[in-house]
Amino acid sequence: MHRIILDTDPGIDDALALFLALASPEIQLEALTTVCGNVNLDHTTRNALALLSLAGREDIPVAAGASRPLILPHGDAASVHGLNGLGQLQLPEPRITAHPQHAADLIIERVMQAPGEITLVAIGPLTNLALALHKEPRIARAVREVYIMGGALRVPGNVTPAAEFNIYCDPHAAHVVFHAGWPLRIVSLDVTHQVSLTPADFAQLATSLDGSVKHAILQMTDFYFNVFQAEIATKAFHMHDPLCLAATFLPDLITWQPAYVDVELQGTLTLGETVADFKQLTQANMQAPVAVDAAGFRALFLERIGQAYL
Amino acid sequence: MHRIILDTDPGIDDALALFLALASPEIQLEALTTVCGNVNLDHTTRNALALLSLAGREDIPVAAGASRPLILPHGDAASVHGLNGLGQLQLPEPRITAHPQHAADLIIERVMQAPGEITLVAIGPLTNLALALHKEPRIARAVREVYIMGGALRVPGNVTPAAEFNIYCDPHAAHVVFHAGWPLRIVSLDVTHQVSLTPADFAQLATSLDGSVKHAILQMTDFYFNVFQAEIATKAFHMHDPLCLAATFLPDLITWQPAYVDVELQGTLTLGETVADFKQLTQANMQAPVAVDAAGFRALFLERIGQAYL
Amino acid sequence: MHRIILDTDPGIDDALALFLALASPEIQLEALTTVCGNVNLDHTTRNALALLSLAGREDIPVAAGASRPLILPHGDAASVHGLNGLGQLQLPEPRITAHPQHAADLIIERVMQAPGEITLVAIGPLTNLALALHKEPRIARAVREVYIMGGALRVPGNVTPAAEFNIYCDPHAAHVVFHAGWPLRIVSLDVTHQVSLTPADFAQLATSLDGSVKHAILQMTDFYFNVFQAEIATKAFHMHDPLCLAATFLPDLITWQPAYVDVELQGTLTLGETVADFKQLTQANMQAPVAVDAAGFRALFLERIGQAYL
Amino acid sequence: MHRIILDTDPGIDDALALFLALASPEIQLEALTTVCGNVNLDHTTRNALALLSLAGREDIPVAAGASRPLILPHGDAASVHGLNGLGQLQLPEPRITAHPQHAADLIIERVMQAPGEITLVAIGPLTNLALALHKEPRIARAVREVYIMGGALRVPGNVTPAAEFNIYCDPHAAHVVFHAGWPLRIVSLDVTHQVSLTPADFAQLATSLDGSVKHAILQMTDFYFNVFQAEIATKAFHMHDPLCLAATFLPDLITWQPAYVDVELQGTLTLGETVADFKQLTQANMQAPVAVDAAGFRALFLERIGQAYL
Repeated sequence: MHRIILDTDPGIDDALALFLALASPEIQLEALTTVCGNVNLDHTTRNALALLSLAGREDIPVAAGASRPLILPHGDAASVHGLNGLGQLQLPEPRITAHPQHAADLIIERVMQAPGEITLVAIGPLTNLALALHKEPRIARAVREVYIMGGALRVPGNVTPAAEFNIYCDPHAAHVVFHAGWPLRIVSLDVTHQVSLTPADFAQLATSLDGSVKHAILQMTDFYFNVFQAEIATKAFHMHDPLCLAATFLPDLITWQPAYVDVELQGTLTLGETVADFKQLTQANMQAPVAVDAAGFRALFLERIGQAYL
Repeated sequence: MHRIILDTDPGIDDALALFLALASPEIQLEALTTVCGNVNLDHTTRNALALLSLAGREDIPVAAGASRPLILPHGDAASVHGLNGLGQLQLPEPRITAHPQHAADLIIERVMQAPGEITLVAIGPLTNLALALHKEPRIARAVREVYIMGGALRVPGNVTPAAEFNIYCDPHAAHVVFHAGWPLRIVSLDVTHQVSLTPADFAQLATSLDGSVKHAILQMTDFYFNVFQAEIATKAFHMHDPLCLAATFLPDLITWQPAYVDVELQGTLTLGETVADFKQLTQANMQAPVAVDAAGFRALFLERIGQAYL
Repeated sequence: MHRIILDTDPGIDDALALFLALASPEIQLEALTTVCGNVNLDHTTRNALALLSLAGREDIPVAAGASRPLILPHGDAASVHGLNGLGQLQLPEPRITAHPQHAADLIIERVMQAPGEITLVAIGPLTNLALALHKEPRIARAVREVYIMGGALRVPGNVTPAAEFNIYCDPHAAHVVFHAGWPLRIVSLDVTHQVSLTPADFAQLATSLDGSVKHAILQMTDFYFNVFQAEIATKAFHMHDPLCLAATFLPDLITWQPAYVDVELQGTLTLGETVADFKQLTQANMQAPVAVDAAGFRALFLERIGQAYL
Repeated sequence: MHRIILDTDPGIDDALALFLALASPEIQLEALTTVCGNVNLDHTTRNALALLSLAGREDIPVAAGASRPLILPHGDAASVHGLNGLGQLQLPEPRITAHPQHAADLIIERVMQAPGEITLVAIGPLTNLALALHKEPRIARAVREVYIMGGALRVPGNVTPAAEFNIYCDPHAAHVVFHAGWPLRIVSLDVTHQVSLTPADFAQLATSLDGSVKHAILQMTDFYFNVFQAEIATKAFHMHDPLCLAATFLPDLITWQPAYVDVELQGTLTLGETVADFKQLTQANMQAPVAVDAAGFRALFLERIGQAYL
């Protein structure tokens, strides 16, 4: 059983990762923590609450965290995820409210209370994890494992030619997280760009029931296919965050290699680039992906979502 | 009455500022918060506790904060302040222990509980203030005023030709603090280098009583004059932190001018430099010093310390 | 017929490119210009002269150019190419001396005298081309075409995880060359790492005649296989410079795509990285490689060298 | 006798420096070399030719140099010097044309022909000197002395809060010039801001003769006082370039101190800042000014100009 805190900025693929987590018996979802990223903190927090309500899991606490990156101004991804972060999907007002703790405090408390038990899965910018590390550096030894979705090691970025969105959004936080000396796995564009679903894939999930999780998934991915991808003339939805979530309980979906990865904080063209030294001239600070079982992931996702929700 | 939280990294001149605060009836010292800076966090916290014990003020809480700067590795100033931060002065084991809250949390709680009442006085690196702002941005509106000792606006730095120690130690935190939109006054080297005390000045304070505050002051400044200043062949002790503290209740000691000040985060030669635009091409974000009543400050300090302590 | 000025820093693969040029009837080699790069300028100039003597082509002028990069200090590649740049191959004293003109002046004079006729092929750092552009910007319109070996667009670098040697050695010169507005093709590691020769390939060229070109080739590549590649446990010699030379008269060896490529001048981890925007958010400034006919190149090289030299 | 090559981008105060040079018997003006700076190269070259014609000194050659900075795009100072660089003063078409050599070549030839004889005085951006050093590094040993007007060591800049115009315009060239290992003196804003002339000073020079040098001086400085200084509400003309010129033959006008000065190439706020280490933690690379005899300079200038021209 994997006890997970999911740090997230929903976000369409964040929502898919959340639904996958709730549909996976291997995972015990301890809490969601929210961060500004794809959209601002008010939206990501409201989205997290509403998605849990939709899924009937109001028992899981949601703690709001950072409303801005550590140093840089916030630049969102509303052009990809819609102004509300969920592709303009209108969810009912959530029946629950956010937990009173700050995300960083919730992370610290849960990790320190159960040494070696909690896995942090960060699928947004890394601001909350950086703040938690600053406030309580001992979480680095008490955590079980840390998975992050972000970076582009041997492939181009998606927000600039050099940088991936989550890292670019708060490169300073990534620097802190990369150098915390904890057991870290990075799920980067190198593999997430290989796991895409098509409109036909999502159509398999179709259901007639308004307001269901499946209905929400179809509406969000429709937005993506119709509005955003219209511009770039492709019909594939990269499953960035769901792959990262799946890897926490099925790590063999990905082939890993130790690497020293740092993030560029100074470059004019390369701000937020994740620079990987696979030769380990510097000692490795994380496990990095070199290949992915794309078919295996696709089958898992469709089966889990297909069975778990009406 | 000025209700003050003193954020500090003692440090010899930090100790002098603390003693001045305790000797000044205009000030109600709510708490000390400690930060890594002149020496590491363990030392600065232990020093804060021991200095309060020495002064018989164990009633004032001490909350420990950041043990490292936001992004950069920590570089200390032990060459100036001695390995223990107090010029090798050996103080008795403090009779009190640190407050359980993190410095950032104490700052947030006290400021939010008394809107418009609390003045933050930061005389070390600005990491704690930055963490507090990240966790609760609303303190920017609830604080009464923020004074910081740091920077070098129209004069060279003291740790590099371009940068002053407190800002250089955590320039990223300074960037956050400078842009928080709160009422900020900076007491920079431009004026602190004009307020120096000599061995003769300190000799006026002499006392025969071992273990007294005055005795501690003489021992610490002796270290400075004998060990550190021997190298640079001068006999003047710059009263950086005490001037900053005094300005909180006697702001007219300094002549102020609004300025837009930012901190260089990228430069090879200029990392941590405080760049001031007095023409306000960008809107001013703080009050900056243009002159100081050095004689007035000197008289105040010697009188207050002379009368308050045996 | 391609009238070529070869700007070079021999260098083992530079020597192979030179021999290929001399063995190719499509090419009329107008001059060599030398630059500091793999080794210092004295060595690269002496090597250029000695290689021409060895090949019996003392009629081709050699003009020495820049002895240091535009801004950065020079870091050589003697660990790869040997202290003398040619894998410790000892060539006889050249029978010719360098041309009295500076490389930049020779380039300017030849290009301006024959507008639309001269192709520049730069297989070392780009300092000479940058100096020529600064002194006579009109060469940008008078040149026929510019080929450069350098950069790593979608693959890691070879001198740092992010940067290729020729560009890293003088990134500022590359910046000038990339933005000159002239017809530019870049032969980057993306394709040169796909065209390698093995010891067996070179053995085909074996000859019993001491002092011949083939003998020199075998000695140089032996050094590379025995000394340098011993460390990295591979037995493949990347034909960086010969591929670039071959592309000037057989451009279809490479599949090209327009791209905007700039060079990072500021990054801490990414100095000298060539950042490529294939989406052309900025207008393309060069043709960049996307694929290479590796077998075709290999066959060409072995046939040309095999037949041209005893 | 000082044999001087004046590298210049006229520019109003450049013109004043030229007139002072022509009026000073201690100076033998060997040549002018022009550079883009205050305005573009076509204007600065035309201005140099026209100013010599006006002064009846068509015998002095003018060689045009760099039309752009080494790396950065050119940003001019037309807002200060007028669109034509001379405060809209309309001079007759010059009777001479530019020398056929590039400025860098002229500098190299003259310096190498008379080792130890030639003083370079650079009162614009340092691009030409950098190109000359790159093409012929031996000029560093053959030159007599190098004076440059530029930088701001202990005072704010004039084009940004941190940088002075000549250095900011081409900081990379300044980096090359500062590290050439030649005998260098820098005349920075620290002293040039102390030598100002007022409208009343210039009025002393008044003459009724249209077309004379004095008339030109009055027209140019009128432009400056009326148009540019109107904005900043002062009435003082800083004699940057004339002071630099005067210091070549009267070095005691300035009190000098050895310093290590480097130029910031990376900073976001501090690009082009001249950072001075007067403690010489790094070995000094130039003589820097600490004080100036402002009255002495003013008297010299007014007397020389007053007597030399009708």
